[in-house]
Amino acid sequence: MVKGLWFTELQTKNMALSLKTKQSLHHESSEFQEISMVDTYEFGRMLLLDGIIMTTIKDEFVYHEMIALPALNTHPNPKNVLVIGGGDGGAIREIVKHPKVEKATLCEIDGQVIEVSKKYLPEISAALDDPKVEILVADGIKHIRESKNTYDVICVDSTDPIGPAVGLFAKEFYQGIYDALKEDGLFVAQTESPWVNEELIKRVYNDIKDIFPITKLYLANVPTYPTGLWSFTMGSKKYDPLKVDKNSIPDTNTKYYTSEIHFNAFQLPPFVQKLLK
Amino acid sequence: MVKGLWFTELQTKNMALSLKTKQSLHHESSEFQEISMVDTYEFGRMLLLDGIIMTTIKDEFVYHEMIALPALNTHPNPKNVLVIGGGDGGAIREIVKHPKVEKATLCEIDGQVIEVSKKYLPEISAALDDPKVEILVADGIKHIRESKNTYDVICVDSTDPIGPAVGLFAKEFYQGIYDALKEDGLFVAQTESPWVNEELIKRVYNDIKDIFPITKLYLANVPTYPTGLWSFTMGSKKYDPLKVDKNSIPDTNTKYYTSEIHFNAFQLPPFVQKLLK
Repeated sequence: MVKGLWFTELQTKNMALSLKTKQSLHHESSEFQEISMVDTYEFGRMLLLDGIIMTTIKDEFVYHEMIALPALNTHPNPKNVLVIGGGDGGAIREIVKHPKVEKATLCEIDGQVIEVSKKYLPEISAALDDPKVEILVADGIKHIRESKNTYDVICVDSTDPIGPAVGLFAKEFYQGIYDALKEDGLFVAQTESPWVNEELIKRVYNDIKDIFPITKLYLANVPTYPTGLWSFTMGSKKYDPLKVDKNSIPDTNTKYYTSEIHFNAFQLPPFVQKLLK
Repeated sequence: MVKGLWFTELQTKNMALSLKTKQSLHHESSEFQEISMVDTYEFGRMLLLDGIIMTTIKDEFVYHEMIALPALNTHPNPKNVLVIGGGDGGAIREIVKHPKVEKATLCEIDGQVIEVSKKYLPEISAALDDPKVEILVADGIKHIRESKNTYDVICVDSTDPIGPAVGLFAKEFYQGIYDALKEDGLFVAQTESPWVNEELIKRVYNDIKDIFPITKLYLANVPTYPTGLWSFTMGSKKYDPLKVDKNSIPDTNTKYYTSEIHFNAFQLPPFVQKLLK
C-alpha cells in the first residue's frame, strides 16, 4: 500500500480540495461513470463519481437530511416519495425514518452505485433493504415521463450538471416532475453553490418558478462540496415550507436539521437573495 | 511572471485547499510573522499570514460582518468599540458604519499587516482612515490588561491559536476582557470550525461561560476557511443576543448578515450543540 497519497478534486477550474487518503477500496468503470471508493483521514470513507466527491462518512448527514427533511416536513402527508439519483441510499434512509412515509422509491440509473454503496457505506445505504423501499435501476428522466399524478414528494439527488445528470437540470424535466406529482405534491433538487454556480442557480430557480406556484431556495453547510455552502431549490404546488406548523415536525434524531433550521435555512443572505431577483 | 502557480493551505494535516494564483503582490517577514498578498482567480486578492488565508476580496464580507454586527446589535448603545487583531480593517469597516458607534479602536500587534492591507486591500481597509478610528500598534493582551471598565463591545479578530495568537484563546485573557468591558459590555471572538476544531471550541466556550453570565456560539459560512463553517463565541454581561428587538437592528447595507440571520446564526445543528454540553 503506497503511503502519502492525496485525492484532489478540482472543484472549479481555479479551486481544489485535497484529502489525504488511507487506502483505495474500489474502482470501476460502470456503463455510466467512474465509481471510486476511498478511505480518507479527515472524512472517512468517500464515494467518488467521475472523480467528484459525492458523499463522505463524516459529513454525509448534512446533505442527506437537508435534501429529504425540509420537503417531507412541508407536506402534511408524504405517503409516497420518490428519490431520483441518490444511489448511496442516504436520502432514502432519512425518508424511511419519517413516520408518515408508506413507500419510498429509489430511481437510480447506475445499479453499480447502489452495489458499491451497499458494500462500502453500510451506514448510509442500510435503509435500501427496508420493506418500504422499492429500487428501480432506471433512467430518472424516463421514469418521470411515465409517472402521472403519483408522488407526494420527489427528491432530485443528482450529480453535478455534467455527463449523465444534465437532463435533471432541464426545464422539461421540472415540467415532468410537476405532472408526476399529485395535485398537492412538491419536490426538491440539489442546486450547487451560490458562490460558484450563480448562473445555474438563477436559471433553475426561474425555470421552477415558471412551473410551480411556490418556489424557494434554501442553504446548508456541506464541508466536502465546493465553498462549503450548498443550495437546494423546492417547487411546491400547494404547501409553503415557511407555513409549516413547527410542532408538526417529527424528531427523527437528526444531526444537522432541526425544526428551527427548517425555517432558518430559507432565510438567505443578501448576496444569495440577489441571485433570485 | 510564472504561470500555473497554485497556493495551497494545509487546513488540517489531512485536508488542503488550493487556489490558482494570478500573481504574487507582496511578501515580507515582519517582526511577528510572514505576510503575503496574492491575487487569485477564484477569490481575488488574498491576505496570508504564515501561509494561512486571513481574508479574500470575494468572501471577506461574511467574516467581517459576522464578527462585528451580531455583537454591536446586541448592545443597545455601542459607543466605544475595540477590535483586537483585525489589522486588515474589515471588522472596523463594519463597526464605523453602525450609527451609534462614536469611537472604534484597533489594537493590532503587527503594524505591517495594517500597511500591507492599506496598500493592497483598500476595499477592506479604507475605514481605518475614518475619524472615529484610533489605531494602536500594540499587544492586545497588554492593552486588555491595562484597560478597565472602558469598552461597550470588544471583537477578538485573531489568527488561529498558534504563534502570536495563542494568548488570545486563554482563560486569563477572557477575564481581562471582562474587566476591560463596562458593566453592561459584551465581546465576541472567532473560534474556528466545529468540524475540525472541536476541542478548542469546547474549551473556549466553557472558559467564557465560567466568566460571563451569557455565553452563546453562532455560525457563518466562510468558503476560504476550513470546512466552510466558522464559529464565533459571544460573552455578555447583561444583553442577550436572542432578546434583541429585531426592529432595532439598523440596515447597514450588508451582504451576509440580516436581522433574521442575527437570530438564526445562533440556532445550532445538533452536531454543534453536542460540543457545548
